[in-house]
Amino acid sequence: MAELLSQIQSPADLHKLSDAQLAAVAQEIRDELVKVLSIRSAHFASNLGVVELCLALHLTYDFAKDRLIWDTGHQIYPHKLITGRHKTFRSIRTKGGLMGFPNPAESPYDLFMTGHAGSSVSTISGLKAGDDLLGRTDRHAVAVIGDGAFPSGIVFEAFNNIAGLKQNALVVLNDNEMSICPRTGGMAHYLDHCRATGLYQGSKRTLNQILNQIPLVGEAARTSLESLRDGLKAVFKNGMLFEEMGFRYFGPVDGHDLAGLRKILKLLKTQTGPVLLHVLTTKGHGVPQAAEDPVTFHSPPVFEEVGPERRIVAMKKGGAKAYTDVVSAAIHAAMAADPKVAVLTAAMCQGNKLEKVRADYPTRFFDTGICESHAVAFAAGMAKAGAKPIVDIYSTFLQRSFDQIFQEVALQNLPVVFTLDRAGLAGPDGPTHHGVFDVPYMRLFPNMTMMAPGDELDVEPMLRFALAHNGPISIRYPKANLDRLDRTGDPAPIELGKAEVIDWGEDGCFVALGTMTATCVAAAKRLHADGIHMGVINARFVKPLDRETILRAVELLPLVVTVEEGTLEGGFGSAVLEAANAAGLDARNVLRKGIPDKFIEHGDRAELLADIGLDVDGLVAAVRKYREECADRDSLSGYAVG
Amino acid sequence: MAELLSQIQSPADLHKLSDAQLAAVAQEIRDELVKVLSIRSAHFASNLGVVELCLALHLTYDFAKDRLIWDTGHQIYPHKLITGRHKTFRSIRTKGGLMGFPNPAESPYDLFMTGHAGSSVSTISGLKAGDDLLGRTDRHAVAVIGDGAFPSGIVFEAFNNIAGLKQNALVVLNDNEMSICPRTGGMAHYLDHCRATGLYQGSKRTLNQILNQIPLVGEAARTSLESLRDGLKAVFKNGMLFEEMGFRYFGPVDGHDLAGLRKILKLLKTQTGPVLLHVLTTKGHGVPQAAEDPVTFHSPPVFEEVGPERRIVAMKKGGAKAYTDVVSAAIHAAMAADPKVAVLTAAMCQGNKLEKVRADYPTRFFDTGICESHAVAFAAGMAKAGAKPIVDIYSTFLQRSFDQIFQEVALQNLPVVFTLDRAGLAGPDGPTHHGVFDVPYMRLFPNMTMMAPGDELDVEPMLRFALAHNGPISIRYPKANLDRLDRTGDPAPIELGKAEVIDWGEDGCFVALGTMTATCVAAAKRLHADGIHMGVINARFVKPLDRETILRAVELLPLVVTVEEGTLEGGFGSAVLEAANAAGLDARNVLRKGIPDKFIEHGDRAELLADIGLDVDGLVAAVRKYREECADRDSLSGYAVG
Repeated sequence: MAELLSQIQSPADLHKLSDAQLAAVAQEIRDELVKVLSIRSAHFASNLGVVELCLALHLTYDFAKDRLIWDTGHQIYPHKLITGRHKTFRSIRTKGGLMGFPNPAESPYDLFMTGHAGSSVSTISGLKAGDDLLGRTDRHAVAVIGDGAFPSGIVFEAFNNIAGLKQNALVVLNDNEMSICPRTGGMAHYLDHCRATGLYQGSKRTLNQILNQIPLVGEAARTSLESLRDGLKAVFKNGMLFEEMGFRYFGPVDGHDLAGLRKILKLLKTQTGPVLLHVLTTKGHGVPQAAEDPVTFHSPPVFEEVGPERRIVAMKKGGAKAYTDVVSAAIHAAMAADPKVAVLTAAMCQGNKLEKVRADYPTRFFDTGICESHAVAFAAGMAKAGAKPIVDIYSTFLQRSFDQIFQEVALQNLPVVFTLDRAGLAGPDGPTHHGVFDVPYMRLFPNMTMMAPGDELDVEPMLRFALAHNGPISIRYPKANLDRLDRTGDPAPIELGKAEVIDWGEDGCFVALGTMTATCVAAAKRLHADGIHMGVINARFVKPLDRETILRAVELLPLVVTVEEGTLEGGFGSAVLEAANAAGLDARNVLRKGIPDKFIEHGDRAELLADIGLDVDGLVAAVRKYREECADRDSLSGYAVG
Repeated sequence: MAELLSQIQSPADLHKLSDAQLAAVAQEIRDELVKVLSIRSAHFASNLGVVELCLALHLTYDFAKDRLIWDTGHQIYPHKLITGRHKTFRSIRTKGGLMGFPNPAESPYDLFMTGHAGSSVSTISGLKAGDDLLGRTDRHAVAVIGDGAFPSGIVFEAFNNIAGLKQNALVVLNDNEMSICPRTGGMAHYLDHCRATGLYQGSKRTLNQILNQIPLVGEAARTSLESLRDGLKAVFKNGMLFEEMGFRYFGPVDGHDLAGLRKILKLLKTQTGPVLLHVLTTKGHGVPQAAEDPVTFHSPPVFEEVGPERRIVAMKKGGAKAYTDVVSAAIHAAMAADPKVAVLTAAMCQGNKLEKVRADYPTRFFDTGICESHAVAFAAGMAKAGAKPIVDIYSTFLQRSFDQIFQEVALQNLPVVFTLDRAGLAGPDGPTHHGVFDVPYMRLFPNMTMMAPGDELDVEPMLRFALAHNGPISIRYPKANLDRLDRTGDPAPIELGKAEVIDWGEDGCFVALGTMTATCVAAAKRLHADGIHMGVINARFVKPLDRETILRAVELLPLVVTVEEGTLEGGFGSAVLEAANAAGLDARNVLRKGIPDKFIEHGDRAELLADIGLDVDGLVAAVRKYREECADRDSLSGYAVG
């Protein structure tokens, strides 16, 4: 019904509501989340978990002036629902609709587009420093960060800096005992410990009574006892780790008790210096199935049937197989074949579909948590020791490891295999998740080899090739269903720096990178029907480039269209231009198609690709346009000469 | 005399020496360090500080099989001196000589080339995991990391992971109370606290006695007291922060007491699980002046006169002014002119020559410590709040912020100014410090503007332009003395995407980026004497490129040589090729000169540039060669047509 929710135009309207009405709003938000999931796949369990926290924050602070950053950002839905976006909410994650992450273009309540984890503490620290500099010391600064994002190195860097600056900043640790996958590492154990010792809080008074009854044994003992009492105060308060870092720690508190949250936040608003509030929430709270299985319900398929009391009766069945499936199967096969092979993921066991690998090879499966920098340096150490590590991280998140790819891997020339999932447009997640920069950021490093499978049949041989290769090597593949190219016979074997000629054209050819290959084959087919014979080359290697094959095409054919699902700035097409230039070739017949120099919004991947001409229609049109322009030019030049 | 040191062929030889002889070796190492500094500038104070630690480690472990990583690596000199490199030691930091950082090509005792801080804990973790996987559980793993590198986020990520894996790994925290500049942040305070509370250790016994005398007040109190005693144990032991993270903490211990160090290391060798040893050292130990002023003596100028007892009587006077000087002066001027301008450095106050800025504008100067990721996200927050942050970080270290440049700055289109020092070849520091990747890694991001001053006169106007620009913008400049171009009249003003035409050639022109401009002017002058008229364009902007000017040259001139001190893979020359291709131009007359696709070694910057043809001779030769090849081709094609 959303009777109350629909009346909330801005957080100020929350103040008009009674406690009972606020509880009803929380219910309505959860109902709305279930409804959205009945339309399309979206982030779910994390949003259910922060409803009360979100309300409490907006009831305590005025984020029209105060600063609020939701770290990672996929738990932003309740915030969107109460900051003037209830009406448009069901457009979420669709092209032109609301973004599934914070978006400053949508609302002044969204300060930063987030998506990559861990930077919120740094940004509120910067906001606070900027506000202070401009004399706006009245502006409070709050970051909400999940325990999954918490071990990211940048969080620690920010804590260190905030403590040094003694900034008035509140970090809310939203502890739901989860990353997207179950959390790992020392910090996870520590937070568990804080949860457990939370029980001691009630007995503080008793302890103080005891302490006051301790008889004093001489003056030396008195001094020692003073220290002892200080020490005790610290021990019996939770969160020593954060206290030692220079933060005042409060908690843990129940993240679903709205009244309790408001009370503690009201207190904290008056504190000076850095403060950490440890809030315990349940991912999936309010939908029992989601609370019980938050991994499945992190970003579940569409709910086809929802029963009473938000019971999910049926979810949409899994569709066609995706590249991620064959890559994880190939990884599994490689681990079965060679006991030296290990795999690393950064909290993306589910996203990378490594559950079977984790189950079957637990000692060779490493989930570092959302710590991509460490994951790559760790892999380099493994490779140096003689193991064969595969770093399985999304293209966009691997950006976090840029410097480790440089120093720990490429500079040492170590055989680390990178499998870059979600390389290309990631679809509804939008610009923070699109993997469109990896071609230039990987190919710029000496020693790096870089591949992309033309279809599903390339995947397993490429991984085998990569594991046998004695140096850094990467395989990029998209978030997409599998393609299978029409070939006469088996695919050509994978050879270093060799492209696969699917068809050698007469009027020109496409030089396609990765999944663009199938699109190019389809475009060539369409053009063929019009009597235009475009060939298709499955480039396979970005680096080393197959100079022989590709430059032969540049030299002999009237048109060579490079097609890539990645940025054109320094990308695959540029590598072709560089090679042609080095070989002294006229490259006016090279047409580069790829992602233009702007951030691409969210939406269905196919829609987004079509928008930028990276679909069959777009490629066909591009070829036709080029041919027309050439014809004009020829007739013009004929005229000029004549 | 180096009588003992010269006999040490490998660490095994240390075992033959008495305590007195080992003390003499420590002295000889220090003498050798002073001698090297009498030849050339090198890292000094950090090496003086780790002499005993280095000896103790090699006396306890066998690093022919065990694993040792020196984090950051500039304190590697004592290690080099006792691992078979005493004879060649004085070649250090010269071309073809020993590297000033660990180098696996030199010795099996150097496992990783380090230089960027903080990755050692991750790499020993990876080495340990790899060794365990291959059944070599006997191999110990040790990382030595300074307190300056310690707050780097990746260290925290590694601690989290090691604790989760419960690995047998020893992290030695070499605490000299210094980063390269004085350390900052919460961790610094914490380590100070550990130093101080170290004193409590002696009174543990007394406290236990007191505790045992506490009268018990009922059963409930007894239970509480048990907890109390556990708590006390923890409080009165140092290093709670690390203990909470899952490490066993030992220390602090005196890092100049060789016998004491050996004793504790011997004990720790038998421990299982992750261990942190907190060692207190003095940067500059053994040379009083260096110990008193470790900032100046971090990497001091050549010692021109050394008196008795290693007293430095005279150091070489500072030479010509460098780009860093005019950039820091321009930053100072900008801060004087506009109270919204702030500057951030990542522990490089000295390297970036920001001491005067720090002194005059302490509230707008932010040293984040070696936390580049945080620094950039923090700057983004400041920019969002309306301040004007300048991020002043070396090109190579800014690689650490690649993902924050993406998400926090470029994606949000925030006006953060990046001043990239040491862009180009950094000289004797070698491949970990060369800044040769920034052009492709910055230009690939939408919204980014990228500049490079053609000479010193461009610097201040560019910074002013950058601060007035409403979006992310960067200025790259080299570690080099200033150039002043011969112009007729004043330099052209800085305009977005406009190059400066120094001279429009007839036979061709150089399109020079940054400092290559002066080299191009000199090369053009030389060629002019031979009757070849090459013009020079000071490109100024990498992005947006001055298409109009540069493409006019490509269209009209027989030769256009792009010259950049950066990688050719996706670099400035590639941007020119992309623009030419998009404009439908034949770019066979474009010759790209830059850094080839390999890691460049260490050595004098001028020598290194000459090696790869980026000096006057190289450019002159390249132009001549191109012209000869064209002549051959023309005569050949003439022949074919004829």
